[in-house]
Amino acid sequence: MEFIIESKDKNTSGRNGILKTKHGEIETPTFMPVGTVGAVKTMSPDDLRSIHAQIILGNTYHLYLRPGIEVLNGAGGLHKFNSWNKPILTDSGGFQVFSLSKLNKISDDGVEFQSHLDGSRHLFTPEFSMEIQRNIGADIIMAFDECPPGDSEREIVKKAVLRTTKWMKRCHSWLETNKELYDYEQVLFPIIQGSIDHNLRRRSLEELIPFSKCGIALGGLAVGEEKNAMRDTIQFSTEFLPHNQPRYLMGVGKPSDLIYAIRNGIDMFDCVMPTRNGRNGNIFTENGVLSIKNHKFKNDFSPIDETSIHPWGKEFSKSYVRHLFNINEILGLRIASTLNLSFYLNLMERVRKNIRLGSFDSWSLSLLREMKNMKGM
Amino acid sequence: MEFIIESKDKNTSGRNGILKTKHGEIETPTFMPVGTVGAVKTMSPDDLRSIHAQIILGNTYHLYLRPGIEVLNGAGGLHKFNSWNKPILTDSGGFQVFSLSKLNKISDDGVEFQSHLDGSRHLFTPEFSMEIQRNIGADIIMAFDECPPGDSEREIVKKAVLRTTKWMKRCHSWLETNKELYDYEQVLFPIIQGSIDHNLRRRSLEELIPFSKCGIALGGLAVGEEKNAMRDTIQFSTEFLPHNQPRYLMGVGKPSDLIYAIRNGIDMFDCVMPTRNGRNGNIFTENGVLSIKNHKFKNDFSPIDETSIHPWGKEFSKSYVRHLFNINEILGLRIASTLNLSFYLNLMERVRKNIRLGSFDSWSLSLLREMKNMKGM
Repeated sequence: MEFIIESKDKNTSGRNGILKTKHGEIETPTFMPVGTVGAVKTMSPDDLRSIHAQIILGNTYHLYLRPGIEVLNGAGGLHKFNSWNKPILTDSGGFQVFSLSKLNKISDDGVEFQSHLDGSRHLFTPEFSMEIQRNIGADIIMAFDECPPGDSEREIVKKAVLRTTKWMKRCHSWLETNKELYDYEQVLFPIIQGSIDHNLRRRSLEELIPFSKCGIALGGLAVGEEKNAMRDTIQFSTEFLPHNQPRYLMGVGKPSDLIYAIRNGIDMFDCVMPTRNGRNGNIFTENGVLSIKNHKFKNDFSPIDETSIHPWGKEFSKSYVRHLFNINEILGLRIASTLNLSFYLNLMERVRKNIRLGSFDSWSLSLLREMKNMKGM
Repeated sequence: MEFIIESKDKNTSGRNGILKTKHGEIETPTFMPVGTVGAVKTMSPDDLRSIHAQIILGNTYHLYLRPGIEVLNGAGGLHKFNSWNKPILTDSGGFQVFSLSKLNKISDDGVEFQSHLDGSRHLFTPEFSMEIQRNIGADIIMAFDECPPGDSEREIVKKAVLRTTKWMKRCHSWLETNKELYDYEQVLFPIIQGSIDHNLRRRSLEELIPFSKCGIALGGLAVGEEKNAMRDTIQFSTEFLPHNQPRYLMGVGKPSDLIYAIRNGIDMFDCVMPTRNGRNGNIFTENGVLSIKNHKFKNDFSPIDETSIHPWGKEFSKSYVRHLFNINEILGLRIASTLNLSFYLNLMERVRKNIRLGSFDSWSLSLLREMKNMKGM
């Protein structure tokens, strides 16, 4: 995998890059729609292509439980299974094991947990996470990490940092001795932990950067910590990250968080917010978030989002989309999810254009000021 | 509205026609996807256009309850509300009142019922059904009829036939004195009742044909009566129907029923079967109905339907679609609904082609023989 930085902003750490994978190129900064269990909820591959998605994310924890690695391997990997022939990134399963399942035991060996679906018992080790991700076959795979909640005590965070380093080494070793299953390269990104503690972040950075060959991620943020502390940690951490590799901020977040992080040199994002909030009837627009279930839209026949670059923004009225939510019609979920992902992907397009044109600093500051007054942005 | 018969089959009563409306032309025989509450479940207008749907159906009972006639009128009619700019037909609300709601009182005046949603009380009269359908603004509207269950006693069926005639006259009168609300014509189709009783059918036909100016429908079939009796009634009734008008067989049905009815001169159909069965995981293919939830498809990576003219038939595997149903992912419902509607619409296209080419008789007989051995067809 190759990463080429095409332009750098003069006043901020923002940069434009191209990440080249066997399944296609990704322009950075990029936002990755989340395809939890092998599909971005409500969307087809055509839909994703039509809104110019360049890479999607799959969740190892979910895919391991259903359909399971035997099926994924039988299909020839996730790209063939779900007919998404562009790049895919998989997380390590760590985050979901810690946040979704019933944990039974965490040790240096790995994490014993019970499935949130049927209570069945499983053990994820760094080696097994690599093996599952080999079978899924994503272009970018993530190291198995321990991600404690955002309000954890320092001792717990420290333990997680040390353990994440040990696990990193085991992921690396396993991959060294177990070749790719399919006919393309899979690259591994380490995940920096350390919560909002600068010293622990520093330690995690120092210990993991040696394992960062093609890209690196910041984990353990947007998991319940205070917003300013999160931003502060992003700013602090990015200064130490390798400059010639893509930097991925995991699980973040609101449009304003993305802009802030890009100003600090982040290149890649993923978040369920556009699809999940969409399914709850909250639609991101350039004028703020529209809560489309609101009764006030009952007779509002103006377009759902005149500012959207997606044709549905003008095609459907607020009244109609509200009606679709009111009758629990799937098309409503589709319209909201599609418009939201289109908003996020177009935001990245606007970011890249402004970096290219040298106007990113003033443009992004003015956007952040606007968004400050918009709830949910 | 104009109906032009383009070709007639020599050996059967099958015929090709073109029905011209202000919102576009409909090639007959045609199948109308059911858009119950203003949307064909799971589908967008683009999706419907992409599978060559030429007309969709809306349900007056559902649309009256939600979003209500005030909203539909405010939008400028259903075409503008749901962005479907091709022809629409609405039923009269009668069938749903009888089948879905709690009936309180049926009299010559009309039907008092309680909403299946919140138990609220409403009264549908022939005049009010016309008023609602005026506000919805479909190109083709249906007379308000009484539709008793298929196993009703003769006296009940007879009463329904007589009442349907009385109501027909009131629908006609109301429309004579209340002009269109929008800038296009709405034409009224009478609905013949009489269950499987030939004498009552004959009576209903004689009394209602004088009101048939642009088209006519057979109602009260596929409501629980025996299959052969249904087919027999179709054959009996079609002989009396005006030849120069489209004949619409309401709520039917299975692919083999459609072929049988077309052989007897039916031009229009609607049925929830392709979408409803699709959402239950049953996919119509040229080789029979595929129950995609079946465990045997877990590792079957062959295309979901190689015979489909829709690209998704080859794009997705049986294993993947089974997985989507297994995880309750909306894309699964979309794929099944889309492939099923595509199957029905393509079946009509094949019918029209064979009538045009003069091969309809032998082609349809051979298809009926094939379908006889396919469960659900």
